[in-house]
Amino acid sequence: MTDTNRQIQLASRPVGAVKPDNWAHVTVPAAAPADGEFAGRTRVISLDPAMRGWVDDRPSYIPPVGLGDVMRAASVVEVTSSQHPDYRPGDFVVGAFGVQEYVVSNGRGARKIDAAAASPATYLGALGAPGMTAYFGLLDIGALAEGETVVVSGAAGAVGTMVGQIAKVRGARVIGIAGGAAKCGLLTDELGFDAAIDYRAGGVRKALRSHAPNGIDVYFDNVGGEILDAALANLALRARVVICGAISQYNNETPVQGPSNYLSLLVRRARMEGFVVFDYASRYAEAERDITGWIADGRIRVQEHVVTGTVDDFPATLDMLYRGENTGKLVLELV
Amino acid sequence: MTDTNRQIQLASRPVGAVKPDNWAHVTVPAAAPADGEFAGRTRVISLDPAMRGWVDDRPSYIPPVGLGDVMRAASVVEVTSSQHPDYRPGDFVVGAFGVQEYVVSNGRGARKIDAAAASPATYLGALGAPGMTAYFGLLDIGALAEGETVVVSGAAGAVGTMVGQIAKVRGARVIGIAGGAAKCGLLTDELGFDAAIDYRAGGVRKALRSHAPNGIDVYFDNVGGEILDAALANLALRARVVICGAISQYNNETPVQGPSNYLSLLVRRARMEGFVVFDYASRYAEAERDITGWIADGRIRVQEHVVTGTVDDFPATLDMLYRGENTGKLVLELV
Repeated sequence: MTDTNRQIQLASRPVGAVKPDNWAHVTVPAAAPADGEFAGRTRVISLDPAMRGWVDDRPSYIPPVGLGDVMRAASVVEVTSSQHPDYRPGDFVVGAFGVQEYVVSNGRGARKIDAAAASPATYLGALGAPGMTAYFGLLDIGALAEGETVVVSGAAGAVGTMVGQIAKVRGARVIGIAGGAAKCGLLTDELGFDAAIDYRAGGVRKALRSHAPNGIDVYFDNVGGEILDAALANLALRARVVICGAISQYNNETPVQGPSNYLSLLVRRARMEGFVVFDYASRYAEAERDITGWIADGRIRVQEHVVTGTVDDFPATLDMLYRGENTGKLVLELV
Repeated sequence: MTDTNRQIQLASRPVGAVKPDNWAHVTVPAAAPADGEFAGRTRVISLDPAMRGWVDDRPSYIPPVGLGDVMRAASVVEVTSSQHPDYRPGDFVVGAFGVQEYVVSNGRGARKIDAAAASPATYLGALGAPGMTAYFGLLDIGALAEGETVVVSGAAGAVGTMVGQIAKVRGARVIGIAGGAAKCGLLTDELGFDAAIDYRAGGVRKALRSHAPNGIDVYFDNVGGEILDAALANLALRARVVICGAISQYNNETPVQGPSNYLSLLVRRARMEGFVVFDYASRYAEAERDITGWIADGRIRVQEHVVTGTVDDFPATLDMLYRGENTGKLVLELV
């Protein structure tokens, strides 16, 4: 156990893209666990596109991170000492512990993981919020039926790779939209997608028409902007548009670009629906059981992008998400 | 029976607002009914916001009106002669007979109405497509539950007046958005709305927050544009946004204004869904029975705006819709 704890705190609220001076890199004394608490060392920190929204001071599905607070993040910690009956040194625990080296927790909102069954990164990805998001977004909000055509944007990301693979398991035809030939190759050659569209090459609307000539039954949107409009222009009758995120819009200094083609919802008798994965917490076990089984039998391949460093590398690692530099689940593993 | 038939045909496709030269006023010989047909004289013609979309040459829920074709319109005709076993002179018949003085029909898509039970205008309004649209849009797509808060835009129009009144029958709190103090007064003083917001006075977003402090459960949108955005900013959790139309956008020469606040669907776990009333044709009898009952017991008041003239007055009467000059169902009654 060390005496100090390095933290990344929110120093100021960004306008547009997050900049280095929005963060404070702070060293504070490390707390000791009181009765009913455990202490742990952070091993792996999750980087999520939603983080950009969490640092804005406006009403959302979760309160904003306060100025001067440790940046909110899911992470996996290894218990180093414990005054809590359920946790012992050497246990691995996942929770919303924030961007810091050391953690003291009473265990609320946390749970022990089986580090032999899957890596800490997997508990933050395929078996974490991204996996749950893909599972419930696709199957519950998207109401996917066998034989349907699914399109997912941000397809090479943490959620997108899972959406596409779960859709394949469920008997769908799957088209991914991603940036660059390398990501597109990964989708079709390694993750089993039926087709991939490189949005950087342009012509997404025509490419969708070509790959989904009978229209899109489920469009799972992680990006918003022009790609959402291209998908809306290609909906099948009674399509479901799942609004998961809008990474293309998060760093805007101008208003969000609304979907100009939203009247397709009328013409195609379609619906567009948003959701927040936390609402499904009571059903996570169901999703975890399915996903674990699909990983075990090789039908789902976990795709993780591990950056190694210190908590001071958090800001630069987060920027990778918005530049599209990650493939699969992006995590920061502390050395 | 006359020898000639005056028709309004589509002469050219409008760019932006429909202009007089987009129409041809044509006199053609009046046809006589063949075996299995009846002939009728047009009594009342329906004017509908959707007409603007029907004259665009692009895929929609219904094929475009062809150049040189009689303009599509629902109307009520009085049978003047018949070679059809089900129709006799003096019968009143409603159907998609188009903007013309005389009609010959084999009865497909048409049905006889009871002119003693309700006026022809009512069969085009409260008991016609607008009434069906309001009923199924609010109750089926909107899934309205008792005690919820409903907001409807275009509230003083043919659909809006019905949405608000049906919502009141079903035990909702109802806020209407309309243009001008006179329309707003009608909504609250005569049609039983709980509140009305005059969008011409500005501040719709704040007014919605004030009138629906706990959020909007069902937003029934007839207008699109900034009012849709104002409603999206005020959704309750699990709200339903019913996309019925977007009259503010129909005459755009620029792209449709997409709803910038669509990410509220995510934050509020809400859905936005479009529909086309024709899909409910097999259930019209159910809606007609309910609405007829509500009119009979005084819980719904039919609101009709009758212009009298000739078919040559169709273009000018249609323009009234897009200028918001009608209150309730707009029809052209032929003299």
